[in-house]
Amino acid sequence: MVSKAIAIVAGVGPGTGASVARRFAKAYPVVLLARNPDNYESLVKEINSSGGKAIGISTDVSSPDSIKNAMSQVNKEFGDVPAAAAIFNASGRFARKPLLEMTLDEFQGGHEVSVKGAFLFSQAVLPLLLKHVPSGEHPPTLIFTGATASVKANALMSGFASAKFALRALSTSIAKEFAPKGVHVAHAVIDGVIDIPRTKEWLKDQPPEAKIEADGIAEAYWNLHQQSKRCFTNEIDIRPMMEKW
Amino acid sequence: MVSKAIAIVAGVGPGTGASVARRFAKAYPVVLLARNPDNYESLVKEINSSGGKAIGISTDVSSPDSIKNAMSQVNKEFGDVPAAAAIFNASGRFARKPLLEMTLDEFQGGHEVSVKGAFLFSQAVLPLLLKHVPSGEHPPTLIFTGATASVKANALMSGFASAKFALRALSTSIAKEFAPKGVHVAHAVIDGVIDIPRTKEWLKDQPPEAKIEADGIAEAYWNLHQQSKRCFTNEIDIRPMMEKW
Amino acid sequence: MVSKAIAIVAGVGPGTGASVARRFAKAYPVVLLARNPDNYESLVKEINSSGGKAIGISTDVSSPDSIKNAMSQVNKEFGDVPAAAAIFNASGRFARKPLLEMTLDEFQGGHEVSVKGAFLFSQAVLPLLLKHVPSGEHPPTLIFTGATASVKANALMSGFASAKFALRALSTSIAKEFAPKGVHVAHAVIDGVIDIPRTKEWLKDQPPEAKIEADGIAEAYWNLHQQSKRCFTNEIDIRPMMEKW
Amino acid sequence: MVSKAIAIVAGVGPGTGASVARRFAKAYPVVLLARNPDNYESLVKEINSSGGKAIGISTDVSSPDSIKNAMSQVNKEFGDVPAAAAIFNASGRFARKPLLEMTLDEFQGGHEVSVKGAFLFSQAVLPLLLKHVPSGEHPPTLIFTGATASVKANALMSGFASAKFALRALSTSIAKEFAPKGVHVAHAVIDGVIDIPRTKEWLKDQPPEAKIEADGIAEAYWNLHQQSKRCFTNEIDIRPMMEKW
Repeated sequence: MVSKAIAIVAGVGPGTGASVARRFAKAYPVVLLARNPDNYESLVKEINSSGGKAIGISTDVSSPDSIKNAMSQVNKEFGDVPAAAAIFNASGRFARKPLLEMTLDEFQGGHEVSVKGAFLFSQAVLPLLLKHVPSGEHPPTLIFTGATASVKANALMSGFASAKFALRALSTSIAKEFAPKGVHVAHAVIDGVIDIPRTKEWLKDQPPEAKIEADGIAEAYWNLHQQSKRCFTNEIDIRPMMEKW
Repeated sequence: MVSKAIAIVAGVGPGTGASVARRFAKAYPVVLLARNPDNYESLVKEINSSGGKAIGISTDVSSPDSIKNAMSQVNKEFGDVPAAAAIFNASGRFARKPLLEMTLDEFQGGHEVSVKGAFLFSQAVLPLLLKHVPSGEHPPTLIFTGATASVKANALMSGFASAKFALRALSTSIAKEFAPKGVHVAHAVIDGVIDIPRTKEWLKDQPPEAKIEADGIAEAYWNLHQQSKRCFTNEIDIRPMMEKW
Repeated sequence: MVSKAIAIVAGVGPGTGASVARRFAKAYPVVLLARNPDNYESLVKEINSSGGKAIGISTDVSSPDSIKNAMSQVNKEFGDVPAAAAIFNASGRFARKPLLEMTLDEFQGGHEVSVKGAFLFSQAVLPLLLKHVPSGEHPPTLIFTGATASVKANALMSGFASAKFALRALSTSIAKEFAPKGVHVAHAVIDGVIDIPRTKEWLKDQPPEAKIEADGIAEAYWNLHQQSKRCFTNEIDIRPMMEKW
Repeated sequence: MVSKAIAIVAGVGPGTGASVARRFAKAYPVVLLARNPDNYESLVKEINSSGGKAIGISTDVSSPDSIKNAMSQVNKEFGDVPAAAAIFNASGRFARKPLLEMTLDEFQGGHEVSVKGAFLFSQAVLPLLLKHVPSGEHPPTLIFTGATASVKANALMSGFASAKFALRALSTSIAKEFAPKGVHVAHAVIDGVIDIPRTKEWLKDQPPEAKIEADGIAEAYWNLHQQSKRCFTNEIDIRPMMEKW
C-alpha cells in the first residue's frame, strides 16, 4: 500500500504558518514543526477535530539533530511516506540596529534559521518530495517564505536582509536543480505587514487593506502547488492593496 | 439593473489568448480583441455554443481610433458595463537581428503593440475596471503578458527586449497608481516556449515538459484574479519544468 | 594619415552633457549634438578657445534624417574618422501625471528620444566606434545615461519609466552584441537630482551633498572609457551621499 | 600629528587582492590580511622595497578574536590611524555539488568568510573609515568583492550563491547607513574568470580577453575610491570582453 502523501510546514505560528497548515490540511495529512509546542498544539487539535490529520513536532530547524529527529518521527507516524508539499515559513529573530551596535549573535540570528535552517529543512524534505513525483496529481512543491528584505536591503537591516537574500538564492538554486526532476520550488516575497495578533497595533489608523491576510498567502501557496509541471511559477510577490512599494 | 461585469482579452490567437479567454468565459462574458478576425471567430462560436458569452472585435491596439471603436462596440453590446478583468496579451512582430541590420520599423514593431498598445488598452479599460471595484467579488484585475525578454536583454533582441522591459515598467507604474483604488495589476514573465501550433516543431526531441501549456498560464491568471485586496501578487514568472534559466 | 578619433555627445545642455563634453574634450575632438544650438554654442567656443576642438550640430536624435545629417557633417569636418567614445545623454520631455490624464503624446514624449533616439544614435555611431577598435588605446565606448526610473517604475511615471527601462534593455542588448567585437557599452543609473541651474531651487534646505555633481558623472564616464577590454563595467549607479534609496 | 590614513585589504592572494594592494599602496600604507602568510609575505616585501609601506597580518576574518588581534596590530603599528579605504576581497571555500550531497560544513564554508567575515571586518574597519571623513581628500571607501553568484543563483551552487547574495545585501545595507555619514560603500560583481595562476589552464583555447585582468579590477576599485561625496557608485559589474552574460 502506498502511503498517502503528506505536507510538512516548518515555522508554524499564529500567522502564515497556521493558515498554510489549515489550507494544506484540506488535502493532506500535515506535519507541523515549530520550536515551541505552544505554537502548534491548538492547531493540531483543531485540524484533527475537524476531519483532517495533523501532528506537531517540536523542532529547531537550525539543528541537524533536531531536524533528523523530526524526520524520524514523521517516519514512525507515516512510514515511508512521500511528501506532496513542504513549506519553509520559519524566520529567526532579527535586530533592527545600527551595524556598529549589532552583536555577532544578533547578526547571525536570522541566518541560523533562514539560511542554515532552510538548507537543513530542504535536505530533509527533498527525498520525500522526490518520492511523490511519479504518483502525484500535482508536482511536489517546496515553498520558501521571503520578505521585503529578500529583495531590498535597507539600512539597519543588515542581518535580516542578508539572511533573506541568502534564502532567496538558496530557493532559486534548488529550483533550478530539482525542476528537471519534477519538484516545483517557489519563493514568495511577502512585502508588507501580515495581519496577526502580534501586529494588531500596527497601522491602526489605516483600513484593513493596509495589511496582508495570512489566509491569502496560504491560498497563493496552494495555487502554486496546483500548477502543472508545464507551468511552474518560481517566484511571486504578495502585498496588500495599500502598500507603498 | 447593474450590467454583469465582463472580461476583455487583447491579443487572442491560438495560444495564451485563447486559453485565457476560455478560462475567464466560465465566469464572465468575454470581449476578444485581435487584429485579424480569423484569430477569434471560431473561439467566439465555441464559447457562445457552450453556454458562455463572447464577442470578437477586430482591433489594432496600437491605434487610438481602433481602440476607441472597440470600446464603443463594447458599450453598444453591454451598456455601461464594469470590467472584472482585462488581459493584455498582444505582442508585436519582432526581428531577431544584428543592431546594424535592423530597420527602424523592425525595431519599433514590438514597441507599437507592446508599449503604445498596452498604454492605450490600459487607458481604455481602467475606467471599466474602476467601475467594478465596489461591487466585485474579486478586485478587478489587469494583467500584462511579458516574456523572458522582460527581464533579460540579449544580443540581437534589442527591439523586443526594450519593448518588453518598457511594458513591465508600465505594468508596475499602473499597479502602484491603481492598487490603492482597488485595481489589481499584475505582470507575468512567460519564460519559455508556449506549446501552440506555431511552435510544434520546436524542441521536438524533448518531452512535453519542455514547453509551457497555455492552459496553465490561463489558470495562473485566473488565480491572480481570485486574490483578495489584502493579498495582491504583482508579478509572477512561469516556465516549464525542463526550462534552463 | 589616420584621422584622430573623436568623441560624440548627444544631449548637451547645461548639466551632464556639458560636463561630459568638457571631460572628453581633454582627449578628443568632440562633436556636440543638441536640438537647440543655444545648448552648445557657448560650450563649443569655450572648448575651442581653451586648446580643445569642438563642433556643435543641431540635431533631433529622434529623427532619422536629422541624425543622418549630423553624421554627414561629422564626415565633412573629420573625414572617415573613428570614434573613441559616444555618449547618449539625451532625454525627452516627460509628464508626471495620472495615467488616465496622460495624452498619448505625453506618454510617448520620452520614448521618442530615449528609445527611438537611442536606437538611431547607436546605429549611427557604432560603425565609427568599430573603426576605432584596432588602433584605440582604450576600447571604444558607448555610454547611455539612465535614471532612477531605469530600474524603478513609480506611480505617475508610466511614460518616463517605460522609456528608461527600454533604454536600459537596449544598452544591455547592444553591450552583449558588441563586446566580443571590442566595443565597450555601459549604462549609468543616475539616481538623484543633478545640481544644474534648473534644479537650483530643489532641495535648498539640504547640504550640497544632496545633489549630484555633473562633473562627477563625467569623471565616472571617463573612467568607464579607460577600462581595458579585459575589464568592462556595463552598469554603474550614481547617487549623492545624502540620497535615500 | 595626525597619522597618515591607511588602506586595509582582506583576502590577499595572488589575484585581485594583490593587485588591489599594489594599487592602493601607491597612495597609502597598506595592511594586508590573509589566513596564510604565504599569501602576503612576498607582496609585503615587494611594496616595502619599492617605496611603499605594507604590513601583513595573519588573520582569519571569520574569527572575532583574529579580527580583533589584527586591529590591535594595526593600532600598534600605526597608532590611532584613520582608514582611507578598506577592501573585503576574502572568499571562503565552496563546493559545487548537488544539494543532497552537500554537507552542512560545505554549505556553510562560504558563509563563514563571505557573510560572517564580511560583517566582522566591516565592524572593525568602519570606525577607522569614519575617522577619515573630515580630513580625507576622497571619502573613505569600503568595497566588497562579489561574483556572478551575487546576482545569479545557479543549480549546484546553493552554498556559494546564498553567501554571495547575503554579502551583496550586507554591502547595500551598510552603504545606506553610512553614506549620510560620509563613507562610500560599494559592491563589485566580478562576472567572469580572473586571470591568475590558479586559472591558467581555464579557457586556454580562448584569447586573453576571455579572462578578467586583476589589475583592471584594482583600477576600478581605485576609481570608486576617487569619487566625490556628490557622486557615489554603489555597485559595478566587471567582465571581460568575451564573457557571455
